[in-house]
Amino acid sequence: MLDNPQALTVTTGALPGSRKIHVEGSRPDIQVAMREIDLEPSSGEAPVRVYDTSGPFTDPSVQVDITKGLPRLRRAWVQERGDVEEYEGRAHKPEDDGLKPGETIGVPVFDRQGLRPLRAKPGQVVTQLAYAKRGVITPEMEYVAIRENLRRAELREAQERDGEDFGADIPDQVTPEFVRAEVARGRAIIPSNINHPEAEPMIIGRNFLTKINANIGNSAVASSVSEEVEKLVWAIRWGADTVMDLSTGRHIHATREWILRNSPVPIGTVPIYQALEKVDGRAEDLTWEVYRDTLIEQCEQGVDYFTIHAGLRLAHIPLTAKRVTGIVSRGGSIMAKWCLAHHKENFLYTHFEDICEILKTYDVSFSLGDGLRPGSIADANDAAQFAELETLGELTHIAWKHECQVIIEGPGHVPMHKIKKNVEKQLALCGEAPFYTLGPLVTDIAPGYDHITSAIGAAMIGWFGTAMLCYVTPKEHLGLPDRQDVREGVVTYKLAAHAADLAKGHPAARERDDALSRARFSFRWKDQFNLALDPDKALEFHDQTLPAEGAKIAHFCSMCGPKFCAYKISQEVRDIAAEQGMEQMSEKFRAEGGEIYKVESPAAE
Amino acid sequence: MLDNPQALTVTTGALPGSRKIHVEGSRPDIQVAMREIDLEPSSGEAPVRVYDTSGPFTDPSVQVDITKGLPRLRRAWVQERGDVEEYEGRAHKPEDDGLKPGETIGVPVFDRQGLRPLRAKPGQVVTQLAYAKRGVITPEMEYVAIRENLRRAELREAQERDGEDFGADIPDQVTPEFVRAEVARGRAIIPSNINHPEAEPMIIGRNFLTKINANIGNSAVASSVSEEVEKLVWAIRWGADTVMDLSTGRHIHATREWILRNSPVPIGTVPIYQALEKVDGRAEDLTWEVYRDTLIEQCEQGVDYFTIHAGLRLAHIPLTAKRVTGIVSRGGSIMAKWCLAHHKENFLYTHFEDICEILKTYDVSFSLGDGLRPGSIADANDAAQFAELETLGELTHIAWKHECQVIIEGPGHVPMHKIKKNVEKQLALCGEAPFYTLGPLVTDIAPGYDHITSAIGAAMIGWFGTAMLCYVTPKEHLGLPDRQDVREGVVTYKLAAHAADLAKGHPAARERDDALSRARFSFRWKDQFNLALDPDKALEFHDQTLPAEGAKIAHFCSMCGPKFCAYKISQEVRDIAAEQGMEQMSEKFRAEGGEIYKVESPAAE
Repeated sequence: MLDNPQALTVTTGALPGSRKIHVEGSRPDIQVAMREIDLEPSSGEAPVRVYDTSGPFTDPSVQVDITKGLPRLRRAWVQERGDVEEYEGRAHKPEDDGLKPGETIGVPVFDRQGLRPLRAKPGQVVTQLAYAKRGVITPEMEYVAIRENLRRAELREAQERDGEDFGADIPDQVTPEFVRAEVARGRAIIPSNINHPEAEPMIIGRNFLTKINANIGNSAVASSVSEEVEKLVWAIRWGADTVMDLSTGRHIHATREWILRNSPVPIGTVPIYQALEKVDGRAEDLTWEVYRDTLIEQCEQGVDYFTIHAGLRLAHIPLTAKRVTGIVSRGGSIMAKWCLAHHKENFLYTHFEDICEILKTYDVSFSLGDGLRPGSIADANDAAQFAELETLGELTHIAWKHECQVIIEGPGHVPMHKIKKNVEKQLALCGEAPFYTLGPLVTDIAPGYDHITSAIGAAMIGWFGTAMLCYVTPKEHLGLPDRQDVREGVVTYKLAAHAADLAKGHPAARERDDALSRARFSFRWKDQFNLALDPDKALEFHDQTLPAEGAKIAHFCSMCGPKFCAYKISQEVRDIAAEQGMEQMSEKFRAEGGEIYKVESPAAE
Repeated sequence: MLDNPQALTVTTGALPGSRKIHVEGSRPDIQVAMREIDLEPSSGEAPVRVYDTSGPFTDPSVQVDITKGLPRLRRAWVQERGDVEEYEGRAHKPEDDGLKPGETIGVPVFDRQGLRPLRAKPGQVVTQLAYAKRGVITPEMEYVAIRENLRRAELREAQERDGEDFGADIPDQVTPEFVRAEVARGRAIIPSNINHPEAEPMIIGRNFLTKINANIGNSAVASSVSEEVEKLVWAIRWGADTVMDLSTGRHIHATREWILRNSPVPIGTVPIYQALEKVDGRAEDLTWEVYRDTLIEQCEQGVDYFTIHAGLRLAHIPLTAKRVTGIVSRGGSIMAKWCLAHHKENFLYTHFEDICEILKTYDVSFSLGDGLRPGSIADANDAAQFAELETLGELTHIAWKHECQVIIEGPGHVPMHKIKKNVEKQLALCGEAPFYTLGPLVTDIAPGYDHITSAIGAAMIGWFGTAMLCYVTPKEHLGLPDRQDVREGVVTYKLAAHAADLAKGHPAARERDDALSRARFSFRWKDQFNLALDPDKALEFHDQTLPAEGAKIAHFCSMCGPKFCAYKISQEVRDIAAEQGMEQMSEKFRAEGGEIYKVESPAAE
């Protein structure tokens, strides 16, 4: 537990070889943050520009002070629209932090310095979806368009489109108007609570780059405030596009305030967790009033999206009776218990339109939870799962009627041959609302390696059309992830998301692969490390056997040693060929009757 | 370097909760080794029988002494066929170990105690393919049939077939006759050099369980004999089905002898590596005679399969000129250099039938190398790769004419959308000879995580029809793997292979997933760990936050804590439902008009 503000420090500093850049939009206050990786001058290559989720923490020109929070980048954009008002806000209560009356809080409290919450003026809807439907291109939309493009315009000529996108509609160039149109038809969301102006706008949709989410959060058993803020900073350093705070112990409110005020990425939560804390963990004691109050509490703080298990209906519960692993979603099991205890329909379902009214007042996006997702290979694609998905489709259209932004959560544990059907059903039932999946894990037998079993499913489902992949760490099923697990999980999901983008044929997605491969082939070791998703680990692994600085320019590594390096020999092959004129030489050989066995001319591809 | 026999020890002992069992075949000397995992008595479940590659090292009833080697299980089977003869064998030469004349060997030498090599009698072909074509079911074939089945017969009733096998022909039950027929048509191989009688027979083919290979081997930069033997034992402990010894430094012959005499799995090599050592690393100095002599040396020692880069033809080399990463296969680059230096066709291609003559004398299988495999996403599925594959198809049919067993090596680096075509082309061009692929890696940008980038491709290509997956460790592209890297690579590939088997719909493949999921749902923590591919890691991860023994029976873990455990709540849901009669209760609710929004009846699956 922290009493000491000195301890409130987080990891800062640029990634190796990297610079933070800002690309200006149509007005000076649109400054889109990106990262450029500089290559060795010998390469003669331009810097590689990559998508950057890490915020000011990796910008050496910014003095980070987490007790002050990040600059409120979007505050002016929100206010200039003239449709919001400041107000007093809900009074903070001890039970928000799990405290008994009179008990004092055991963690430092973020000083809001009088900052009051915003809400829509009466009769206004302040969601990006509402603006988009009215034809308004917001600064958020323009920011997103610039951010998604990276160097697409320059690189398009150099790389022809190559991929299978399963009916997606990925443009050569992302324009602000394209962003608006995708948001307007519900095919993408820009999670952007008006009370989280610190967030750099980003978009989730299958016609954009595949995104990843990292979960953090204390539990009753482990973890503290400073660890949680550092986990956020750490997760975005490695590339998390959004972060979900799944805290379930005490000090939930206080922890979340620290996270939100310091987060350049959208933050998601599962409000039922906090609501349950408020009723001392007794699911049957949950009420709509407690839940509603918790939603408002979190809307005012600035949470950008809520997982809401409104699709789990009383009538679905019997469908889980013969499952191998029952209900594995925490929120799902809580709501199922409530339904059965009261013998009533899920109050999140019966109050769904009330929830819409609240969320559209702050532009909090729905992440419709899959409380009945399969928790084992045996339960994949079963009646319970798809019954709930059908209800989620119904709720999507209700939320859209209210101009709320919506994404849909998906499985879970699914063997490879059953993955595609999940995407097809979800797209059809939910009107192409973005799909947001956990994994899926393609086997149950590898606890300790479930970041990998799930990355297999994640890469595939991302390729098929999932817009955002929720990471899984090596500790899944076994315990609470630590710092290294978070890094391992994030990087694993970044590579899965990138593999999906490559396979979908995103324009210019291959730029970084090609730059890294050229560096590899040319023995530019530092460029290879710096272009890696995890430059520190690449360097560390290399240096375990060849730590000397000279080895970073050596034309071999310890894997094969100098004599057997294929790259080195391959370079020699090129040198010989250059001398001899490879084409001519080979033609001459053929002409001389070099055919030994009958061979057809190669089928070029 | 080892001078001390005491240091020649390896890891032994059963895996947690496991017993070695032997299933007897039609004769008492067919004793098929398997592993049974015992579950807690409270489960009321039978032990789970799993495929076991680990040999006597995990059998506490066996006193392992690696200076004596393993029992020669297959020696009698080979000799009773009456078609082999013992002979003096090739004289061992100092250059076999990279020694200059007069130099003494720097590692302990395995004492063969007068054991002499076997070869086919003149005019005989001693390959499993030759026997299969003649209609003979060998003890090796029967062993394999029993081994593949595990508990299929018992479990078939309980689990209906569920999968997509892309035209494979996977039987409900593997019979010795099925094995024979698959070997006869070249669709599977049983790698089984008559001089490696220590090996427990196994089969590689797409109608059998998907196999994995682990590479070990010293390089000029690192590693010693004892480390290599331990790497073998370590790799098979975690589940490697075959092991390739890719040593390239000194003491290659001596190291290999230790490995072979102690290996219960087939051993593969790339003979060109040793041949190159014999000509001091100068590719242009390689000759057919040096190579031929090396083949015989390794055939006599007992290597089970050879990677031979005979498909890389002089005419293909110009096709690599514009590649991003040229030629990335070590063997491929060596042969390309030789071809260009001499301006001649690859001598492995011109002498291919001579090679067949040698290999069929010992039943060494061909693993036709893909010297032109793509080393980057940019080079995937290009003209060079497919031109070589076409030649490999041609060579497959020549090898079959000689009754040699053949598998075909495959890529490499391939984005997800281009993977399937590799399998389709390979099956068509190579007459369904088993495909043996390295990964493929689905992106280039994650050095340090390439066991994962490649496991994604491996699971998919295994599903599509690849018979054996060559592992990749986290050190790929960066350095020589250590012990933990080997374990990480093997377990990662086991999970990928198993995911492929699940998706293909192998009968009973789900048994272990289901048993583990039931254990998980019932909080039988020890069963969950013991059923895991890596029980030690699962336990270690769990214990990082909850080390107390009591936590192994607790109804929660540190991930969510006691109050939020979905499994626990889900059990409570079942308890309530059992009291109330869930079905009836739900029907009653519906009958009372519990529909709030219009909802269709769930689409069952």
